Amino acid sequence: MTGAKRKKKSVLWSKMHTPHCEDIRQWCRRRLPILEWAPQYNLKENLLPDTVSGIMLAVQQVTQGLAFAILSSVHPVFGLYGSLFPAIIYAIFGMGRHVATGTFALTSLISANAVERLVPQSSQNLTMQNNSSLLGLSDFEVQRIGVAAAVSFLGGVIQVAMFVLQLGSATFLLTEPVISAMTTGAATHVVTSQVKYLLGIKIPYISGPLGFFYIYAYVFENIKSVRLEALLLSLLSIVVLVLVKELNEQFKRKIKVVLPVDLVLIIAASFACYCTNMENTYGLEVVGHIPKGIPPPSIPPMNLLSAVVTEAFGVALVGYAASLALAQGSAKKFKYSVDDNQEFLAHGLSNVIPSFFYCIPSAAAMGRTAGLYSTGAKTQVACLISCIFILIVIYAIGPLLYWLPMCVLASIIVVGLKGMLIQFRDLKKYWNVDKIDWGIWVSTYIFTICFAANVGLLFGVACTIAILIGRFPRAKTLSIKNMKEMEFKVKTETDNESTHQVKIISINNPLVFLNVKKFHIDLKNIIQRENATNHLLDDISKCEQNTLLNSLSSGSYNEDASQPCLTEKWSLILDCSGLTFFDYSGVSMLVEVYTDCKDMNMDVSLASCPDSLIKAMKYCGNLDSERPIFFESVSAAISNIYSNKSSNKLTDHSEV
Amino acid sequence: MTGAKRKKKSVLWSKMHTPHCEDIRQWCRRRLPILEWAPQYNLKENLLPDTVSGIMLAVQQVTQGLAFAILSSVHPVFGLYGSLFPAIIYAIFGMGRHVATGTFALTSLISANAVERLVPQSSQNLTMQNNSSLLGLSDFEVQRIGVAAAVSFLGGVIQVAMFVLQLGSATFLLTEPVISAMTTGAATHVVTSQVKYLLGIKIPYISGPLGFFYIYAYVFENIKSVRLEALLLSLLSIVVLVLVKELNEQFKRKIKVVLPVDLVLIIAASFACYCTNMENTYGLEVVGHIPKGIPPPSIPPMNLLSAVVTEAFGVALVGYAASLALAQGSAKKFKYSVDDNQEFLAHGLSNVIPSFFYCIPSAAAMGRTAGLYSTGAKTQVACLISCIFILIVIYAIGPLLYWLPMCVLASIIVVGLKGMLIQFRDLKKYWNVDKIDWGIWVSTYIFTICFAANVGLLFGVACTIAILIGRFPRAKTLSIKNMKEMEFKVKTETDNESTHQVKIISINNPLVFLNVKKFHIDLKNIIQRENATNHLLDDISKCEQNTLLNSLSSGSYNEDASQPCLTEKWSLILDCSGLTFFDYSGVSMLVEVYTDCKDMNMDVSLASCPDSLIKAMKYCGNLDSERPIFFESVSAAISNIYSNKSSNKLTDHSEV
Repeated sequence: MTGAKRKKKSVLWSKMHTPHCEDIRQWCRRRLPILEWAPQYNLKENLLPDTVSGIMLAVQQVTQGLAFAILSSVHPVFGLYGSLFPAIIYAIFGMGRHVATGTFALTSLISANAVERLVPQSSQNLTMQNNSSLLGLSDFEVQRIGVAAAVSFLGGVIQVAMFVLQLGSATFLLTEPVISAMTTGAATHVVTSQVKYLLGIKIPYISGPLGFFYIYAYVFENIKSVRLEALLLSLLSIVVLVLVKELNEQFKRKIKVVLPVDLVLIIAASFACYCTNMENTYGLEVVGHIPKGIPPPSIPPMNLLSAVVTEAFGVALVGYAASLALAQGSAKKFKYSVDDNQEFLAHGLSNVIPSFFYCIPSAAAMGRTAGLYSTGAKTQVACLISCIFILIVIYAIGPLLYWLPMCVLASIIVVGLKGMLIQFRDLKKYWNVDKIDWGIWVSTYIFTICFAANVGLLFGVACTIAILIGRFPRAKTLSIKNMKEMEFKVKTETDNESTHQVKIISINNPLVFLNVKKFHIDLKNIIQRENATNHLLDDISKCEQNTLLNSLSSGSYNEDASQPCLTEKWSLILDCSGLTFFDYSGVSMLVEVYTDCKDMNMDVSLASCPDSLIKAMKYCGNLDSERPIFFESVSAAISNIYSNKSSNKLTDHSEV
Repeated sequence: MTGAKRKKKSVLWSKMHTPHCEDIRQWCRRRLPILEWAPQYNLKENLLPDTVSGIMLAVQQVTQGLAFAILSSVHPVFGLYGSLFPAIIYAIFGMGRHVATGTFALTSLISANAVERLVPQSSQNLTMQNNSSLLGLSDFEVQRIGVAAAVSFLGGVIQVAMFVLQLGSATFLLTEPVISAMTTGAATHVVTSQVKYLLGIKIPYISGPLGFFYIYAYVFENIKSVRLEALLLSLLSIVVLVLVKELNEQFKRKIKVVLPVDLVLIIAASFACYCTNMENTYGLEVVGHIPKGIPPPSIPPMNLLSAVVTEAFGVALVGYAASLALAQGSAKKFKYSVDDNQEFLAHGLSNVIPSFFYCIPSAAAMGRTAGLYSTGAKTQVACLISCIFILIVIYAIGPLLYWLPMCVLASIIVVGLKGMLIQFRDLKKYWNVDKIDWGIWVSTYIFTICFAANVGLLFGVACTIAILIGRFPRAKTLSIKNMKEMEFKVKTETDNESTHQVKIISINNPLVFLNVKKFHIDLKNIIQRENATNHLLDDISKCEQNTLLNSLSSGSYNEDASQPCLTEKWSLILDCSGLTFFDYSGVSMLVEVYTDCKDMNMDVSLASCPDSLIKAMKYCGNLDSERPIFFESVSAAISNIYSNKSSNKLTDHSEV
């Protein structure tokens, strides 16, 4: 290729692509919300509250990171990494300002399933002695985090795939009762998983259907092995936490700064444990050795991906559902908007990228988000600041956490779940607002308890759809429009006292396969009732009289003479302005109604139909070509009936 | 127990149960429709057409019985039984007057799957020599009919269970496009299964996903082994059948009696085959030995039930779906009604009871029902009469069918499927009426072709629901009611020229999780548009002027002075008469709208709400207790706004 040619081509290329540059920039800004808000960040106003919030968040992130890593059946240090990397990624890609991404109880619970299945506890003894090169941890621990990272990676890939497929718009299927019941159920599971630490007894890993109940059965069977020291320390911690948090809540407005009770408790408990050597004296379980620093990134074990598909789907769905609810809550509270699809991307990437850094699956946690609210955070800067403190913990303070008793950690977790557990109060609300939603809540909760969070979520969604489908055919399909005003009798100008009745019925629903049957029955009832009251009593007898009289006179006169009888018929106007959409069943039903009414000698007019309906009906049925049946509005239909009638009368007269 | 006591008790018993007797009789009559119509049977009018129809039906039943038994991979004689017993049972329990129950291509196709899986062709050689006691048939044949009978038994039990669960009301899920596509696809399968007889080549049994294409691939690979004699005879038969049926159709009105061309063809072909000894000379496949008589009943092999669950569900669903469509068609045509649940019972019993008599799964066939229409049958008596002729065939004529060439039988089957195959013409209709239903038709057809009829049916139903769910959130949710008439400005009596605008918006839909988001956005748009046009241009500036002026005057006057500013606000009336049902999401959205509007200084009134909505909203949101927001009708809401305004003005004046 010569230079000239190449130049020409590059000019052409730039010409073709220049207008796209702006598009690409816009697309980037849409996909990287940080580019949107970071340049406009108000340092003076927001930095102080964000820093305070960031410090408080770091405390939460560290405690929850340790606890949820243990919940995931991996070494606690990986929880610290899991509190660091996802938070950074989400700050770049996410739109929720108060969404604190990091370790999450529900996703940890799900990934623990994979970890315990693929690297069971029993394999520990075989590999315990072989220390790997990774931070001096055993091969067993490295295998376990490998499984968790694989779940995180695949879960993230699924979320990104859902972003690509634009499935964010399908999130309307995740209704409030379902999310509420699922998270409450999962919180119950998490509490159950902490029972062993709270009581200080050793329980083998139990999962699978009804595993929830087996755990409690096991606890009651081994109630004697409860370690009283642990139980007392747990109770003390819980009481202190609950009390101080209550007080904080009450005096928040007065004292502005809240007491970081979690931090105080951790320091106090660790110190006490160190001083009294509780680990050996009372046999209390402690967190143990936490290595310093962050290991170099590595690719999660790809050969495990096929084995963790179920868990990955669970992590992707449950994590997204719970996080989206939080992001939407924040958006509603502070009046900005969140894009469902962008959230899929943000959470997907905060699972995929951190999985290369030995992270467990991540999502936004309700407790941390509530913490951000209460400490007055303004933007994601709070999360970024918390990351700095987490880094400090990882590089400096980590080893000091050796003495933190597990029962204190468990207490912090359980108290932190308060926000989810008090969703039980929603039950009363649902009961009063909609009994069916109450039923969905309860059954979703039971499913989540008996099986798992992802099963519960899917059951809830399926149940919601099934109930909608079942409710639809029973709903009111039409209403008689303003009876008193609209149903009028057109007095004819002739001496003949025949009355022409017009009935206006408006369709209030989409007409689809679900409700066409009900619509047909309702309409038939109205027509029959009308016929019974009007025609049978009055008109038909008169009509018969007429025909009798006419049959006595000459036969050629017959056709004209029956005309007054025909004009006694009444007209039906179907107001389709409320007909939002229809399918084939709906159209064929309307055509059937039209044909039936024609057979019964009734005029049917359709007012304000959409064009598609007119086209479909014209195609579907052989409609009367003489009389127009589609009108722009109800009043047009009425005036047509009226004018038709008078013209009929006129022709009558002229013929006579 | 003494005699007196017993007597007393029996009196008591009869007293308690006497009023129930009538109930039981009514229940029986509802469950045994034959008790309803048989006593009123009009011998004079109906017996002749029913007899003629019965004879013609018997011909169809015998040919289809033989062919569909072979399709089911069982001995042809069992098809004759399958044409006899289900017809009798359905006549007793069924409500469709033109529903000719008997062997059915689709259910045969499904049960063949079970037969070939559990008793494959390869096992024939092992047991061929051992003749069982049953009609001199081989053990192999007895095993095969055992499987088919087990499928029939379990399928019938499932149908009866669905009757008990009253699932007949869920049949609205089976929409016309789905049924049409599924039956067309299944008919394509049946044609494919007959190809080997039409061409006279031997094809191993092929099933499973994409089996359809493998069969044609096999045919094209072995195109050289086509037996020309069979092909020619098939072509001749098909041409004769199609031509004569066309002529019959055209001259039906003139000659009244149609030529039973199937019967003529069977006799002619059998006779020709016998005379020329085609079986040996040309190697043509014939039906073969058909034993005489009916064996004593026996219990279907219960140990096979668990192995045929899939097929049983397929038979139950597909058979019921296809039959119900025929029954409803007949009911629509002759203006009577069919109970969906009773049909479940009728078809369930016509599967369960005949399964004790070596019958293959049964259902109503479209070809036979069309035959009943064209020969002018009036009631199920035609089916009962056909049973007499089938009995004659079983006991006397059966063995003569030995010489019937399989290719002629296959031709009769293929031509008989015409009615199903021309449903392809529906495609054009769906395209014109609703593109989405067209898409459902095509995809259901493709699924049926690639997999099986039951898979296609389930896919179609799931697809229909999914599309409804997807369509709902996009549909129009509200309409501005009669803009010109209703949107009026209330001129105040004061010199202040402030205008009070009322906007009436009617909700046209159920407000559920699917469409609340759209509803909210639509409503917001209306409000914003309104604000943009009215307030910004005129009112707000005036309002600001007022407040400016007021702030210049004394502070104590401030609150009163802002009143004229408040009266500039406009009111929103939501007409809920079209709101058919709602769930928790709907209620919380309405409360949110109310709160938003209150924040924007707008009055919201809800007209003609159902009581449940009022209760739910009162519970859900902290509504304004000063101002009533629920009104019986739109006019009540308007007059309230008006009177409120004047009273406001009055208090204004009095204060000034």
